[in-house]
Amino acid sequence: MRFVDLIEKKADGKALTKEEIQEMITAYVNGDIPDYQMSSMCMAILQRGMTPEETADLTLAMMHSGDVVDLSDLPGVKLDKHSTGGVGDTTTLVVAPLVAACGGTVAKMSGRGLGHTGGTLDKLESIPGCSVEQSMESFKKIVRENGVAVIGQTGNLVPADKKLYALRDVTATVRSIPLIASSIMSKKLASGADAIVLDVKTGSGAFMRTKEEAFELARLMVRIGTLVGRKVRALVTDMNQPLGNAVGNALEVQEAVELLSGEIPSTDPLYQVCMLLGENLLMSAGLVKDEAEGRAKLEEAIHNGSGLKKLQRMIELQGGDPSYLTTDGMKKLVEVKRHVYVTADKDGFVNHMNAEGIGTAVQMLGAGRAKKDDVIDMAVGLVMKVRCGAEVRKGDVLCDLYVNDEKYLDDAVALLKNSIVIEDEKGEVLPMVYGVVTEKDV
Amino acid sequence: MRFVDLIEKKADGKALTKEEIQEMITAYVNGDIPDYQMSSMCMAILQRGMTPEETADLTLAMMHSGDVVDLSDLPGVKLDKHSTGGVGDTTTLVVAPLVAACGGTVAKMSGRGLGHTGGTLDKLESIPGCSVEQSMESFKKIVRENGVAVIGQTGNLVPADKKLYALRDVTATVRSIPLIASSIMSKKLASGADAIVLDVKTGSGAFMRTKEEAFELARLMVRIGTLVGRKVRALVTDMNQPLGNAVGNALEVQEAVELLSGEIPSTDPLYQVCMLLGENLLMSAGLVKDEAEGRAKLEEAIHNGSGLKKLQRMIELQGGDPSYLTTDGMKKLVEVKRHVYVTADKDGFVNHMNAEGIGTAVQMLGAGRAKKDDVIDMAVGLVMKVRCGAEVRKGDVLCDLYVNDEKYLDDAVALLKNSIVIEDEKGEVLPMVYGVVTEKDV
Repeated sequence: MRFVDLIEKKADGKALTKEEIQEMITAYVNGDIPDYQMSSMCMAILQRGMTPEETADLTLAMMHSGDVVDLSDLPGVKLDKHSTGGVGDTTTLVVAPLVAACGGTVAKMSGRGLGHTGGTLDKLESIPGCSVEQSMESFKKIVRENGVAVIGQTGNLVPADKKLYALRDVTATVRSIPLIASSIMSKKLASGADAIVLDVKTGSGAFMRTKEEAFELARLMVRIGTLVGRKVRALVTDMNQPLGNAVGNALEVQEAVELLSGEIPSTDPLYQVCMLLGENLLMSAGLVKDEAEGRAKLEEAIHNGSGLKKLQRMIELQGGDPSYLTTDGMKKLVEVKRHVYVTADKDGFVNHMNAEGIGTAVQMLGAGRAKKDDVIDMAVGLVMKVRCGAEVRKGDVLCDLYVNDEKYLDDAVALLKNSIVIEDEKGEVLPMVYGVVTEKDV
Repeated sequence: MRFVDLIEKKADGKALTKEEIQEMITAYVNGDIPDYQMSSMCMAILQRGMTPEETADLTLAMMHSGDVVDLSDLPGVKLDKHSTGGVGDTTTLVVAPLVAACGGTVAKMSGRGLGHTGGTLDKLESIPGCSVEQSMESFKKIVRENGVAVIGQTGNLVPADKKLYALRDVTATVRSIPLIASSIMSKKLASGADAIVLDVKTGSGAFMRTKEEAFELARLMVRIGTLVGRKVRALVTDMNQPLGNAVGNALEVQEAVELLSGEIPSTDPLYQVCMLLGENLLMSAGLVKDEAEGRAKLEEAIHNGSGLKKLQRMIELQGGDPSYLTTDGMKKLVEVKRHVYVTADKDGFVNHMNAEGIGTAVQMLGAGRAKKDDVIDMAVGLVMKVRCGAEVRKGDVLCDLYVNDEKYLDDAVALLKNSIVIEDEKGEVLPMVYGVVTEKDV
């Protein structure tokens, strides 16, 4: 079949077969399908959709376009988590060691910051000496000894996604839910985990702007997992404000260390989402029977310090200096030239935040990259002093900026003032967690 | 604005502004927009459509991407006709000289055969010496003297369409009605006519497979004409069987000469469509007040031979030998090595034909091109001996094949047998003309 006929089939809203999808991905990666045809196909998919079966076939075809990590020689159920990207989302650095402390095996490949969202690899690199580039042998050795390692992608994983994502980015076809689902799931499946817990973010700081879209994506990814024989669960959580209070690389590691040290109250949104992720990971691994048992084990690992020890040992095994990983030690990594306080211009209620604006402001301070090769300042960022729903008086501090380079400081402050909306009347406060999608729901 | 944002706008179903469309076409022709972005835009347009205003803006932007012919120094209302392409459609060679004989000014640039459809330029070149490549001065000189000339495109007309059509062809975006309308209308407008009568074909041998699509395209093109200040009318006619009985280059010229010589009855479908086109052209030019007056003038030009004289003189002025242009003269141009008769396999009724199949069979005999540079055999083709609705007996001749090269003869005969469907019960016979769309209808 000529590829133009396949585009036409999708343009007519028909489903592609497994063989057609496999041929398409193989030919595209080999350069036998030109970009101008593939972009037309991507737009047809954006407009006409794909069935869950097509999306699963696409996911598998993409997964097998490159190396597939084999973790079968590691003991137990290999666990992975993935967030669709948010602001102040430092859950990996909390949940991965906590779950390992509860007996789980967490072999995670993570990513870098993208746009206004932070990335776990950048955060890990804020710890002197810590290397996220590990060979497969070294990665497995660390997991075998410590139960947890978080590294960058190793090998040639999912080249189809690299090529396709670059094309989608410039052809307005990023927003297709089947294409997003297959992009995420192909990478997760190629990374070798047996069970995956996804955190699908929705709101002003997330790629999924509405709750409905987020649930659609969550259900689709869980369905794909089921279709290909992996255990997949997905949370849908709020990203209308930063998840944690800290936004910035070392600042987020500091908050993770505080949480693992028992210094963050259990009412805190970051704490809650970490518990939910941890419970679902432990249930997926068959290590606990329900949420309550999972919660109890996770909280025990906070209180007895075993979670923090797992993180410290992981950093040490990845070449970093574990002495920083205490609440005192982290203070050295967030030392900056100057603190700047963004304050409320009037009395009122913080009813909304634009999380993307906050993430972008932090990027302007030097904590993120505008271009792929930009150098990050690990210490800078901000700590939120209010959350949505807070009542404030004029002059109250809204956030504490950690500043070194002042080049874009004024712009960042202006953006933050715009991104934290104060109104006279108290508005509706959105929940932090919208729901959990499990295999039973799809 | 970045072009990716413009694609997203259209992907969301929003209308593009005149300025955005102009920028897009200019940048695409200049090579500043890569094919992979433009194909995504074309698929978004196919899926989400365009308003008539957007389509008119696109038409004008494409029209002005290259040379625009100025016919203002020719006298009277300059007339043009255009068919969306069919099988056995030799109307141009009948209508253009007839209208000129009635006082019209027909300055027409025509095209070559495409796929299974024939092209007027190829038909003209079947007459020894006749050249369709004329300079603008020569073209105007012929029109000024004779009232009619039909030549190939001269100058760099609508380069945007050449580039865009080549891309659409390989990205499954040909079928978009706004893109088809702007492609046709930009070329017609750039060719300089004041009034245009379009013949939109629908059926098995046409690009518009349904009557509804054909009317949509017809209304849209008339609307564009109105929006840009030209007089445009459109017929919607049937292409579920060849229009004339002859299919092939010299064979179709022969049929045109027969019609102009008064040898074809007025009940004949080709005759009827030619009258309808002619009437609308004469009304557009203000030369007659209604269809009846137009019809009377056109029939007079048949009966007194003035229409045939116009064709003969046009051929002569374009370098051809006019002595062939009599019913006897044309016989020399359709001499072939062998005639093959395709006969009915059973008694019954010819209820359907696949006009595309018939066009393709004629192409297999050597009358058309599979590739752009293929050489055409001008004499070969076929003459239909039945029309839809005919009752036949086993062994009756369905069509008379004019054959030189027998390489694909068996395949052509098999295709013809499949394309002429004989059934036991008499089926519904479709009308030849579905309607006329004028400015008042849009």
